[in-house]
Amino acid sequence: MHDIAIHQKVLAQNIEIAGTIREKLKARGIFTLNLISSPGSGKTTIIEKTAALLPSEIKLAVIEGDLHTELDSQRLSKLNIPVRQINTGKSCHLDAMMIYRTLPWVLEQNDLNLLLIENVGNMVCPAEYDLGEDMKVAVMSVTEGDDKPLKYPAMFNASDHLLINKMDLQPYTNFDLARAKENALGINPHLNITELSCTTNSGIDRWVEVLTATVLGQPSA
Amino acid sequence: MHDIAIHQKVLAQNIEIAGTIREKLKARGIFTLNLISSPGSGKTTIIEKTAALLPSEIKLAVIEGDLHTELDSQRLSKLNIPVRQINTGKSCHLDAMMIYRTLPWVLEQNDLNLLLIENVGNMVCPAEYDLGEDMKVAVMSVTEGDDKPLKYPAMFNASDHLLINKMDLQPYTNFDLARAKENALGINPHLNITELSCTTNSGIDRWVEVLTATVLGQPSA
Repeated sequence: MHDIAIHQKVLAQNIEIAGTIREKLKARGIFTLNLISSPGSGKTTIIEKTAALLPSEIKLAVIEGDLHTELDSQRLSKLNIPVRQINTGKSCHLDAMMIYRTLPWVLEQNDLNLLLIENVGNMVCPAEYDLGEDMKVAVMSVTEGDDKPLKYPAMFNASDHLLINKMDLQPYTNFDLARAKENALGINPHLNITELSCTTNSGIDRWVEVLTATVLGQPSA
Repeated sequence: MHDIAIHQKVLAQNIEIAGTIREKLKARGIFTLNLISSPGSGKTTIIEKTAALLPSEIKLAVIEGDLHTELDSQRLSKLNIPVRQINTGKSCHLDAMMIYRTLPWVLEQNDLNLLLIENVGNMVCPAEYDLGEDMKVAVMSVTEGDDKPLKYPAMFNASDHLLINKMDLQPYTNFDLARAKENALGINPHLNITELSCTTNSGIDRWVEVLTATVLGQPSA
């Protein structure tokens, strides 16, 4: 019981800090997405592909969450995407305080209107921690199996968008797309679902269109 | 600092309970494996394939860890494998107390000499929690990418065996097997690595041989 009380206190503090972050980002017209998925479902590649297709009106920056390495931020830096690494050490998720500490860097990016936060690869705890984002985007890949929404419902429930990635591998697996969608929409009927392949690029344009409309359509501060 | 102290206390209590579990299982000649991986890397399918090839001298039981569902234990029950479900709720890992509570069930299984524990799909926290097992087995699948050992080193460091699963999908990905092994052995030079495909069954026989020798070769209580 003690641990549960501590956990509730941690989450309550987190929500408070996330509220401050949300206010500061909104005041600067920065739309923020928190990308959550299992390790290796393709979050970094999706960011690379998204960045390449974004229209010039959208100015992107990325916060990369990882336990130890800077591998993902090095990949994005090579593409000239402004990126800030957070290493969480043993923590299996980003929390609002980690994001709060990067705010001076975020706010010094000129004309920034889109901030993507790539969470630590984990389908469980990241769903519980508000980072001050405008929306969470869940990513699942075909190779993980169509039962994942049932097994990790919190991530699907907390998200506005679901990207189903690695669609090019579907013919080689027993992944049932209709069942995956049914499982996901059963958890969260409001989920917008886009199927992608970062290998064939199918669906990336559709996702970037949806994202662009969402970012540019946001009410000004 | 407060949270870190609490976490250390939780881990210390966990180690104590795990010690008790280890003693009780050893006294009964039960060899125990703790399977850890990302969600959807194929742990349950590996257990199904392993069970089908185990020699008659090995009597298997399984503990299934999942947040909410009983999907995996239903799959194993259909194959007449004795299985006990643990639902962790919001917890992203099994802990020793959860296993301790299943011990009466484990110990009432006749002639049991192999207990497989399938942890919650998560590459981070499960590596920190001793469950009283004899060894941890890490599973990673080809589609997760060859950089995973670098990004989630604790799991690879804590494990004795690494199963690289979904080898049949390698031709359709940019997964570099040599680099994956080099990354894993760089973290833990003592790791025994077996490549598997549960679709083509390649490597399963080799893995079952290794497992059988390990179980039957264990010193008697």
